[in-house]
Amino acid sequence: MCELLAMSANVPTDIVFSFTGLAQRGGVTGPHVDGWGITFYEGKGSRTFKDACPSSESHIAKMIQSYPIKSEVVVSHIRQANRGCVSLENTHPFTRELWGRYWTYAHNGQLSDYEEKFVVSRFQPVGVTDSELAFCWILEKVVQKFGEQEPEDARPVFQYIASLADEIRGLGVFNMILSDGEHLMSYCSNNLCYITRKAPFGQATLIDTDVVIDFDKETTPNDIVTVIATRPLTNNEEWHILAAGDWELFRKGVRIPPQ
Amino acid sequence: MCELLAMSANVPTDIVFSFTGLAQRGGVTGPHVDGWGITFYEGKGSRTFKDACPSSESHIAKMIQSYPIKSEVVVSHIRQANRGCVSLENTHPFTRELWGRYWTYAHNGQLSDYEEKFVVSRFQPVGVTDSELAFCWILEKVVQKFGEQEPEDARPVFQYIASLADEIRGLGVFNMILSDGEHLMSYCSNNLCYITRKAPFGQATLIDTDVVIDFDKETTPNDIVTVIATRPLTNNEEWHILAAGDWELFRKGVRIPPQ
Repeated sequence: MCELLAMSANVPTDIVFSFTGLAQRGGVTGPHVDGWGITFYEGKGSRTFKDACPSSESHIAKMIQSYPIKSEVVVSHIRQANRGCVSLENTHPFTRELWGRYWTYAHNGQLSDYEEKFVVSRFQPVGVTDSELAFCWILEKVVQKFGEQEPEDARPVFQYIASLADEIRGLGVFNMILSDGEHLMSYCSNNLCYITRKAPFGQATLIDTDVVIDFDKETTPNDIVTVIATRPLTNNEEWHILAAGDWELFRKGVRIPPQ
Repeated sequence: MCELLAMSANVPTDIVFSFTGLAQRGGVTGPHVDGWGITFYEGKGSRTFKDACPSSESHIAKMIQSYPIKSEVVVSHIRQANRGCVSLENTHPFTRELWGRYWTYAHNGQLSDYEEKFVVSRFQPVGVTDSELAFCWILEKVVQKFGEQEPEDARPVFQYIASLADEIRGLGVFNMILSDGEHLMSYCSNNLCYITRKAPFGQATLIDTDVVIDFDKETTPNDIVTVIATRPLTNNEEWHILAAGDWELFRKGVRIPPQ
């Protein structure tokens, strides 16, 4: 199993507070010692920091915590390996370009008997995880259905991806975070929750390490920031817990209701 | 104009020495202040560090210089913007997946009247540079010629890419670095050189900053390390200067002669 963390915001926001909690689960308060990664979108561009060593010991993870990169969309993952050895090519998040956007994906869970289903050719995995192969298959199916040019309305695309995720959930546990840099999608198999923070902001206390933040001092009244995580990261706020098969779509921090 | 730096080695090698010289050209000894990026391959995996700020001031560039990531293939670029604003999506190197490998590319130069030539659909640019569009076009043409499955012999692929680069050179200046994670290709339009270091190793002195390295202390007798750069980085070694239209292919530090 692994832990997921993601953010969607209407202004460039730093995720240091939440990432500090997550990084502790990579070797201190959690067993996820087989690497970690985080993708920051800045405009249409993105950059991913990855390490195959535990996040609690990683030189690069420390830099992320000390150097706030402000971003509107973040996707992060810390890994406890089940399928695939501990190496950079098996470390999430995974990114592919489609329709002139970078699509970024991270998966928590494990799948079985997937080889026959996940037939791919246009998008091929570089590593050997079930997770990356599932990502390639999703993009392959999306291109088959919608073609090489981006549809004007993104909602039917994510609706279709949710139906693919339903199929994948039949093969095991499939908690997923997916973003095209503008939208952030979460799909729940058994462990995923989110919180949307907006004015009036209060204080929050991390569960995994002794850190308190006063969002009121870090934000402006117009900020809207949604954080998605495997398990709640704070112990004094109300997180929305998703049920099996639930999925949510966010844009600029705001939930987009299903069509 | 921009500066390119790349490495191919037969053992995981750190590039801190060369990168230290290059980073000085991003604002201290050179005018390339519009961002920089570096991609490290570790096995089939890769990670890219990028910043839209000058490399000589970048927090992340400092981390790269203090935290030696050992890699068999490195591609790096520092940018002086000509086409496209200074932003992360316009910052080299660019990466796309093809045939289950990450292909990484950086370009120095400027192209004109390219819009009609570079027709793409399967690989689309995310930013607005001529460089990224040329990269997408190269991959598009490679897939059209070789199909969706990787050929057993990589040399005809790089031979074909060199012929595409010849065409692109007709549109302007096109110095290029390209890697599939195993091979490293350099294509020269007007400024590119390389050096292959192997035993007996000596001392080298950086041109751009007051640093001397004794490779004999940093290497084993079996190491072979090729470094490619826009201009020589050291002033006491003999660099091979490429001529217009020259290209070279390296694997594990060793030059692969043309077929």
